[in-house]
Amino acid sequence: MSRQSRGPQRGKVYLVGAGPGDPELLTLKALRILQSASVVLHDELVPPEVLSLACQGATVRSVGKGCGRQTMTQEEINALMIAYAQDGWTVVRLKGGDPLIFGRAGEEIRALRESGVDFEIVPGVTAASVACASARITLTQRHVASSVVFLTGHHCSGAEPSWPALGPDVTAVVYMPGRDYMELAIRLGSAGLPHDTPCLLISRAAQPPEQMFLGNLGNLHQARGFPAPSILVAGQVAAAAAYNARAGAPPAAARSVT
Amino acid sequence: MSRQSRGPQRGKVYLVGAGPGDPELLTLKALRILQSASVVLHDELVPPEVLSLACQGATVRSVGKGCGRQTMTQEEINALMIAYAQDGWTVVRLKGGDPLIFGRAGEEIRALRESGVDFEIVPGVTAASVACASARITLTQRHVASSVVFLTGHHCSGAEPSWPALGPDVTAVVYMPGRDYMELAIRLGSAGLPHDTPCLLISRAAQPPEQMFLGNLGNLHQARGFPAPSILVAGQVAAAAAYNARAGAPPAAARSVT
Repeated sequence: MSRQSRGPQRGKVYLVGAGPGDPELLTLKALRILQSASVVLHDELVPPEVLSLACQGATVRSVGKGCGRQTMTQEEINALMIAYAQDGWTVVRLKGGDPLIFGRAGEEIRALRESGVDFEIVPGVTAASVACASARITLTQRHVASSVVFLTGHHCSGAEPSWPALGPDVTAVVYMPGRDYMELAIRLGSAGLPHDTPCLLISRAAQPPEQMFLGNLGNLHQARGFPAPSILVAGQVAAAAAYNARAGAPPAAARSVT
Repeated sequence: MSRQSRGPQRGKVYLVGAGPGDPELLTLKALRILQSASVVLHDELVPPEVLSLACQGATVRSVGKGCGRQTMTQEEINALMIAYAQDGWTVVRLKGGDPLIFGRAGEEIRALRESGVDFEIVPGVTAASVACASARITLTQRHVASSVVFLTGHHCSGAEPSWPALGPDVTAVVYMPGRDYMELAIRLGSAGLPHDTPCLLISRAAQPPEQMFLGNLGNLHQARGFPAPSILVAGQVAAAAAYNARAGAPPAAARSVT
């Protein structure tokens, strides 16, 4: 544990991406920093297997941020990590996936900057890559998907995020798609995706029991019982999930309806 | 080294993301597999520091894929990795960044599937996350950037990839932006980005000497001498790079013109 003395030595905050659950998808840098930190402030979705990698004696504290189960406000989280760092501690602010993609890192970066506390960002593997790796499909593909867009289904604040126009050769990935798949399909359709666009819904990617639903925009509403965290991949690349599932290891609740 | 005997035992291919250069940004899983593989077939951009992590005695072979310096065709690469696996070896196909984002993994997945060879995908940290972490900016931000789109400037095949329409609250990241920044700015403008959209060009993120140019779409053409690999982040989130650069560690050739 790197306890720096109070006074002349300065604390530091690391905004660290933990990847989406599987401890093996941590980066070497994230592991090294996690093992040397005195304080770990983590989101609810970071699993115990990852938290157990923190050094013995570290203060490990959940700061919530599960939608609807907010235990602390963003301002309180900011104040807490800054206070620990100003007291000379090395602090890890641990987030699922990559902190820069739908991780509200912007607000924490701003608070850290304004406080004058030293900080560093350690990127992580984002959920879209992990989900697609698990389904053995790509996010981009020449002549099929020349770009990929990451969207979010909703904000915890309740405001509906705006979506850009989506063309037929875009892969659209919806983080936090919610549970109303009918509404989700309507929104994707309104954004420009055709009715027959292949859709792959993945729940708990790389965190067994993983579940997948493969369909299209028109029958996405038939998906049922997909516990969070889940992610939706919509686009031609998703169709390949039908034959790319690993032989002998089909997803538990896979349902191919294309 | 995991040399499996020829015959009844089966080889396997791992498509592995190496992250964008810094060996510490490998995942624990990527490192474990790299250390146990008998054969490593890598892209040109994977640095020696990463390759040196392969186990002693492994066959480590560049299969090229630097644009204009193609040493093998995609078909030859596919055939080679399949041949090694069919001969009973554990093969790592090592790519920079994340293999699923502009990594041509789709073509390799298809070839592997058709060959019947067992394979698995190990996702990596993509260049966009690494570049933004280095500049201490986010890719998404509530009320500012509600989505992020990954584009590519060009394909090695020479065909111009199509770009979706870009709105003002999208972060657009251009992988392989090329060197004609005037043309790049024109294309981004045609896709819908306003003239004054903040733009951050980052060269060799997390691979010193890193360089950054911060400007906007209107003066992006003034950027000079940015060696590959580089990446462009266009959108309101980029503006924060002006004041987020780490105190005492400004990027070598940063030039703030906003």
